[in-house]
Amino acid sequence: MKDHVGIGIIGFGTVGAGTVKILQENRELIHERTNLYLDIRKIADLDIETDRGIPVDPAVLTRDAEEVIHDPDVDIMVELIGGYEPAARFIKESLRHGKYVVTANKALLATRGWELFETADENGTNIAFEASVGGGIPILRSVREGLCANQFQSIHGILNGTANYILTRMDEAEMDFEEALSEAQAKGYAEADPSYDVDGIDTAHKIAILSTLAFGVRVPFDAIPVKGIRSISQLDVRYAHALGLVIKLLAVGRWQDGELEIRVHPVMIPEHHLLAKVKGVYNAIHVIGDFVGSTLYYGKGAGMFPTGSAVVSDIISIARQLSQGCTYNLPPLGYPPPAFREAIIQDASEVKGAFYLRMMTVDRPGVLSKISGILGENGISLSSVIQKGKGEEPVAIVMVTHDTTWRQVDAALKIIDQLDVVMKPTLALHIEQDLK
Amino acid sequence: MKDHVGIGIIGFGTVGAGTVKILQENRELIHERTNLYLDIRKIADLDIETDRGIPVDPAVLTRDAEEVIHDPDVDIMVELIGGYEPAARFIKESLRHGKYVVTANKALLATRGWELFETADENGTNIAFEASVGGGIPILRSVREGLCANQFQSIHGILNGTANYILTRMDEAEMDFEEALSEAQAKGYAEADPSYDVDGIDTAHKIAILSTLAFGVRVPFDAIPVKGIRSISQLDVRYAHALGLVIKLLAVGRWQDGELEIRVHPVMIPEHHLLAKVKGVYNAIHVIGDFVGSTLYYGKGAGMFPTGSAVVSDIISIARQLSQGCTYNLPPLGYPPPAFREAIIQDASEVKGAFYLRMMTVDRPGVLSKISGILGENGISLSSVIQKGKGEEPVAIVMVTHDTTWRQVDAALKIIDQLDVVMKPTLALHIEQDLK
Repeated sequence: MKDHVGIGIIGFGTVGAGTVKILQENRELIHERTNLYLDIRKIADLDIETDRGIPVDPAVLTRDAEEVIHDPDVDIMVELIGGYEPAARFIKESLRHGKYVVTANKALLATRGWELFETADENGTNIAFEASVGGGIPILRSVREGLCANQFQSIHGILNGTANYILTRMDEAEMDFEEALSEAQAKGYAEADPSYDVDGIDTAHKIAILSTLAFGVRVPFDAIPVKGIRSISQLDVRYAHALGLVIKLLAVGRWQDGELEIRVHPVMIPEHHLLAKVKGVYNAIHVIGDFVGSTLYYGKGAGMFPTGSAVVSDIISIARQLSQGCTYNLPPLGYPPPAFREAIIQDASEVKGAFYLRMMTVDRPGVLSKISGILGENGISLSSVIQKGKGEEPVAIVMVTHDTTWRQVDAALKIIDQLDVVMKPTLALHIEQDLK
Repeated sequence: MKDHVGIGIIGFGTVGAGTVKILQENRELIHERTNLYLDIRKIADLDIETDRGIPVDPAVLTRDAEEVIHDPDVDIMVELIGGYEPAARFIKESLRHGKYVVTANKALLATRGWELFETADENGTNIAFEASVGGGIPILRSVREGLCANQFQSIHGILNGTANYILTRMDEAEMDFEEALSEAQAKGYAEADPSYDVDGIDTAHKIAILSTLAFGVRVPFDAIPVKGIRSISQLDVRYAHALGLVIKLLAVGRWQDGELEIRVHPVMIPEHHLLAKVKGVYNAIHVIGDFVGSTLYYGKGAGMFPTGSAVVSDIISIARQLSQGCTYNLPPLGYPPPAFREAIIQDASEVKGAFYLRMMTVDRPGVLSKISGILGENGISLSSVIQKGKGEEPVAIVMVTHDTTWRQVDAALKIIDQLDVVMKPTLALHIEQDLK
């Protein structure tokens, strides 16, 4: 029975430093819980000079990731550099050396996860990745184990803290998108290039991983329709309120008759729903199973310590198994590998729902009738129309439709946005009325 | 490698029927996820005549629990009869026969869990009990595994769906306690004798189990101060709203300097907090860890299918291990058995906080000054006083105190409630202002 387990870390950035700090500060607590000491044997990073404010034995630091991979005393390799390469190569090499791997790399897992899981399988090891979705929230374990008696019906997730922070500030401090983004950047919640977060790509990575675990299918990442939040204006946030709704960047994965509906976009949700109460950098995932019904998981979706908490929980799980020489491997994706088939992705343009349409027009008689005429020709009927404020142009016309589809909305807007009375591209948001 | 695992169930009541239904309906799904078939070999209940609406092979049914315990084809015994005896005896006998046990029996676990876990340990088997806390919410797995990198700081739980349903109806439908209780009984949410639920005992069982997992201590059940919700009136619900607060039956477990603060009672919480949004029969648990920060878990806390979902998730976890002949046992309580010491329980009467005091008095000059005088003599100062409505007696006087303790409040109320101008016992509720 082993009582020390060797940890190697590649990537000593924010999450790497958080992970090291937790392993140090809670070393005795973890020993109490596991009878194990988790020893950091090697930390590789291109920058080993910067002081992270964490005392680390200089002998442990290296610029050469290979030193981690080839160290026979490293049982678990923790990959925290992110991105595709060299992360994928480091992970595969480590697996081939019989090491277990812990990673937070959602981009890699969502797009090239299969080659990694196959390599793990071939080498009798495993990959753990709780930190890749929802930061510190133990959502992957909950889906894979806690709810595994259920056929999952749907997942609705607020999975990006940066985007949620921006939308929250637009809502509560009445900021515009750019202003809220600048504030998020100043506070360290958003990158200098915020595309991954605000354009929905990071959220799409996460819903791809979650959908694979929940529904047991391979999700072709490029098939996920993704829209970001750059087009949301202060006006839309206020109109949402007037309608009893809140705007959230939502990831949706829904299982219907063996097909997967999957999409990432800003939507309006009822303000009384728990997801509407998720503010700032917090994440939440609303999961419905056929027997358990509605469940929700909430916590910080990013940051050195929440994400580090998930990384260390994975390290502990693996260490517990290693220490007992146990060959028991829970399949990392919740299903044994052969079970996975490629998902049949539903055509998102056919997903039915009510829509919020906000048009910016000139203030001229007949505009409203012209626009509603075009909507009608495309089979779209309206449940309400708000036109406020005369005088200043452009004038906002806000319409809420009865149930229709993206296909119909897109077709109508293609014509409407060409009208010379329409001054800016129309914003269309799905209203998730049936959120349980 | 085993591909069939034998299940025996003792107790074919609500949760038993739910468990059987899930095992039947999701049999193929579970096989996809595990490569295993979970076969129900025996179901024991005193009543094997009543039609539960679930097709069961009559040969499987028995009135004799011993048939389950002694059946060599039963690998996992599922105890769903509840209560202390004969449940404890059935569990111990099953463990001694080398069977794994799944149970939802929180009363037994909270009060006599240690003898069961010791028996499991002696016999090299294990007990799983996810269903004992929070129904379908995978809260025990989350605490034991997903958050295991953290020193837990606090747990605040709405852990009883019946009490929460009653408080929700008192709030939203302006019912009195008795009226809401009757409705809950009519809907099957409350027992004919609702004491366990409305008097907080069931909630106390659950926070005892949660605290053991989170803090690694034995919790002497009788040391938990427990108050129920019978004394809450419609008046209090309305005053809470006026103060921006909501009344919830809350279980609190807080770790401070190696000591455990643990208590169950109705409290007032800020209405913007997520726990305040937990309505009806739903449960939620707010867990703070030193590195992960605030997290919350939400779902249905009772019922045949949510609880059945947790039971079956435990069955699947054990079956996965059994099928691989794996001896790996995650300690069921999150710590290896020798780690547990008896908790040092903080004196709840010294817990500091603001209090809500509602007095029913005669309408006479000088009452208010007399009462506030007595409070002052006991070191209690007031932050606000509301006295409404003249004429009809009794008149309600509502006071909110500055930080004080239960000890001081109890001492003052002992005198105040003896005054001849005070017509009914005063209600005192802790205000959880610092809920993060």
